[in-house]
Formats: sequence, structure tokens, C-alpha cells
Amino acid sequence: MFYLIGLGLSSPEDITLAGLNAIKSSERVYLESYTSFLMEASVSELETFYGKSIVVADRDMVETQSDKILEEAQVKNVSFLVVGDPFGATTHTDLLLRCKESGIGYKTFHNASILNAIGATGLSLYNFGQTVSVPFFDGNWKPTSWVDRLLDNLELGLHTLLLLDIKVKEQSVENLARGRKIYEPARYMTIPTAIMESIVDSKNPVDHKPRRTINPDVTLGISVSRVGSSTQAFHAGTLTQLLNLEDVEGKTFGLPLHSLIIIGQRLNPIERDYITQFAVDGPHWRRITSELYNLE
Amino acid sequence: MFYLIGLGLSSPEDITLAGLNAIKSSERVYLESYTSFLMEASVSELETFYGKSIVVADRDMVETQSDKILEEAQVKNVSFLVVGDPFGATTHTDLLLRCKESGIGYKTFHNASILNAIGATGLSLYNFGQTVSVPFFDGNWKPTSWVDRLLDNLELGLHTLLLLDIKVKEQSVENLARGRKIYEPARYMTIPTAIMESIVDSKNPVDHKPRRTINPDVTLGISVSRVGSSTQAFHAGTLTQLLNLEDVEGKTFGLPLHSLIIIGQRLNPIERDYITQFAVDGPHWRRITSELYNLE
Repeated sequence: MFYLIGLGLSSPEDITLAGLNAIKSSERVYLESYTSFLMEASVSELETFYGKSIVVADRDMVETQSDKILEEAQVKNVSFLVVGDPFGATTHTDLLLRCKESGIGYKTFHNASILNAIGATGLSLYNFGQTVSVPFFDGNWKPTSWVDRLLDNLELGLHTLLLLDIKVKEQSVENLARGRKIYEPARYMTIPTAIMESIVDSKNPVDHKPRRTINPDVTLGISVSRVGSSTQAFHAGTLTQLLNLEDVEGKTFGLPLHSLIIIGQRLNPIERDYITQFAVDGPHWRRITSELYNLE
Repeated sequence: MFYLIGLGLSSPEDITLAGLNAIKSSERVYLESYTSFLMEASVSELETFYGKSIVVADRDMVETQSDKILEEAQVKNVSFLVVGDPFGATTHTDLLLRCKESGIGYKTFHNASILNAIGATGLSLYNFGQTVSVPFFDGNWKPTSWVDRLLDNLELGLHTLLLLDIKVKEQSVENLARGRKIYEPARYMTIPTAIMESIVDSKNPVDHKPRRTINPDVTLGISVSRVGSSTQAFHAGTLTQLLNLEDVEGKTFGLPLHSLIIIGQRLNPIERDYITQFAVDGPHWRRITSELYNLE
């Protein structure tokens, strides 16, 4: 049996009872480690918590050794743990499709993911458009088609969740070419970088559709730090305010994981009131939402 | 302390360990009962599972007695349980805002919700646009602005999750006027109804923007029955096929909860392959996705 299990966002106790029971029944436990990480637990803490040893599965292992992982599931219970919900990334449906083709039984265990947890900002999830990932510029190629999606959302008055790139256990081109298992330090895109990319790239959408660019002085956003953890923090304001916040206080946004929300015109009064509590500048927040977002 | 706790989708064991600990520490436990229900557990089963008695909170109670609920939280631990994740509906952020204003400590516990669990269909959550709710026609007023949102998503090539209306513990206008606590039988919108409403209403968008109407013979959808439960079922095909499916087999979609996904053009090959396993007519599914959704 193959168990695909979402761990939720932050602490070992964010797992569901059903998910924990599946882990406890498993002879082998893998932890997918390259798209995210559990904010308040190290691998060894998880091992202690589950009473199981964990095999950390990096991108390389999942892409090249998944046959072996699934073979094991033919004869014993295997748990494959994913931070958040297991259906955030397509790779994991691919594993299930292969279970199906090989006649391996499987069961999935849902959990919270960043995609619904951002409701904690007070914004209605109904008013979000498509989610975008903001990728690092890798030196040779700068993918910017995500900004078209952001602009499409803004045109419709919708909020956008921007997921910021994470590079964990990546090899340099040289080490990759030489087959050296030497990994670069983990990198996390910062909120100011994502804001700057949004502003700059909005001037050159890939699809060349005529749309308004992003004016950072009148476009509102929310910085999302460590949502779902005990140190969760939000800051709301214009994009300019959020940029200046980092400049002035240095470590405002704190440790990863970070995300960014760019707020669309379809903001309602309850959302506005809720968000006021973590606005960088409350009176300014209320003025902007009243004048430019048409709220009383 | 006020605990706002998501229960997940289906079984008592879908709760997180952190959420369960909070319930166990509470002197009073409310269960929000008017926006959804836990598919595989009755209230008394939950009471046994938690070892606590539960106060079932209908819309009336939450709207008129929330002061009392929050007052209790001034002096003891109170858990307020919500099916799915607690931030699906705005009402619940309203409770937190009032905690904040009254100086009552609170903590929230995330969980899976329909909004991320539909990733189990194999569709990438990144390719969904705004979620819509399809409301019952109440006799006097037929709200159709949701169809504008559906059409906006389709124009952008995005998938749409349609949440089907639920009427639980609703009073008739007459009983409401006379203050009689007599409730109508629970009603759940069916998938064929939601499909018909989508087709018909797409011809008359409220905003009168010129957009293509929905042609049910070439527009693909997925029926979503009881996602996250042990009897979860999906059917994929053209909207016409999904309509005929119900006509022929009667109870195909089974017991609630049901949702519907209308698939946008931005379908990728992995999504297509995964969904083939529950296509109403596999070869037809592959032909349509190849000819009309531009997949090889």
C-alpha cells in the first residue's frame, strides 16, 4: 500500500490522526524535501514524533528512484510525506497514476496547504484568481509569464497569491555536469524581491495584451510570513510601504516560508476591517481602501 | 481562549492532532452546522470520538448568540468547529475580529478544505481561476452573477470549481415570520442542476460582456462526489456526457457533498492522462482533449 500524506504547514501536530495512523503502519517513510519544508520540525524531530526513521527524498531521488519506492509499496506499506496537501505539485499525481498502472493500492491524506491557509489573512478565498509562482532568475533565462497571470487577475479585480521560489538541495551547473553531489546553500526568494519583480515585469507582459501596469503607490498587498506557524506574521499596505518596511527594519519578514498577496479591487468591507489590524499604517490603509478600492 | 478548528472533510480522524488537543482542553465545543457537514460522522459519533458534548450551532445561533459564545471564551477554553478549513466563509474571520476587539485570545487550526482537496482530481490547482458558488433559485430572486466569473475563467483558459448550494436547517418564509422553529428538509443542489444552470445562464451574463457561451458538447467537466471521503468518486467528460450519465444510471453521483469542475483550455498532458482513469468514455475523452484542448 502506498500512502500519500499531507503534513500540513508547520508543526508535527499538524498531521491528521488518519495520516499519523498510516505512518505508524508503514515499514518505510519518505519525506519529500524539495518543494517545501515543515517550519517547526526538523527531520529528526519528526522521526522521534512518528517513532519511525525517515528517508529524505530530494528531487533527484523522486525523479530517478520512484520505481524503487513504488516497488516497495507492492509488498509493504510505504508512506510518502508531503508538506501541505499532497496535490500542490503535479509530481505527486504522477506517482498515483503509476500506482494505478502497476496495480498498487494507494490512499491519500489531505491537509491544509498554503492555498487555503492564506484565508487567515481575512481575504475571502472566493476573490482570488489563479495562483502564481515567482521563479528565481537563473542567469540565462528569466521566466516572466507568471506576471501575465497576475495582470489577468488584477483586470478582473481578483487577489493573487504569489508563491516565492525556493531552491533547496540544488546543484550548480558545474557540479551537476560532473556528477558531484555537492549542493548549493538553500535560497528563498524574499518578499521585496517578489514585489520588485511584479512591478518591473508588469511593464512587459509576455502576451503583450494591453493592461495597466502595477503602480506600487496605490496597489495594496499583504506579506505572508510563516502562515500556519506559531510565528505567523502579516503586514498589509501599498507595495511601496511593504518595500520600505523591509528597508527600515531589516528583518521584518523574518525566517521563511514567505508568500505575497497582491490585492485586487474586489475587496469587501469585512476583509478591509480584518486586515486593518496588521496594516503597516492603519489610517493610510483605510484611506487607500476607501479612495481607490471604493469602500466606505 | 477561543479555538477555531478546521475538521477536514470527512471522518473524525481527519482532524489534526493539534486540533484534537485543543478540543480536549475545552469546556465548551460548538459545531458550525449550516455551511457543510462532516460526511462520515454524525454529531454523536463526534461526541464519542472527542469525549465531549457538542452544541450544534446553526446559522441563527452563530448570527444572534455569538456574543454569548465569545463571552464564555473570556473565562474558559471554547472550541468552535468548522468542516474543512475555518477560513472558507467570512463569518469566521468576523468571530476572530471580535475576539481581537474584546481582548480574547484565539488560535486557529487549519485543515484541508474543498478548495485544495479537488487537487485529487489530478488538475493542477495553479490552473484554477476564481471559485464560484451556485445558489438555489429561491423563487423570487435568481442570482446569476456567478456565471460571469465562470465565463471570465473560461476566457483565460482556467478551470472553475463550482460549489453547489446547500440548504440545511432553513426555515420557510412563513415559519420565519411567525418565529416558528420549524425547519425545511435539507436540500443539496445536484450536479446536473449546476450543469444546466451553467449552460443556460452563460447565455445571459449579468455584466453583458461579450464572451462565448458554454457549448456542453465540447466543454469538459468533472463531477466531484464526496471528495476526501472513503466513497469519493469522480466522473469526467463533456457536460452533455455528465448530464446523460445521471439520466441513464440514476444514482451515479450518489450522496452529497457534490461539486463540479468546469475545465478550461489550459489543460496539460499529465492532467489529461490522470483524468482518463475516471473518464465516462476514455477514447472520447482523449479525442476531445486532443482536438479541442490542443493536447497530443
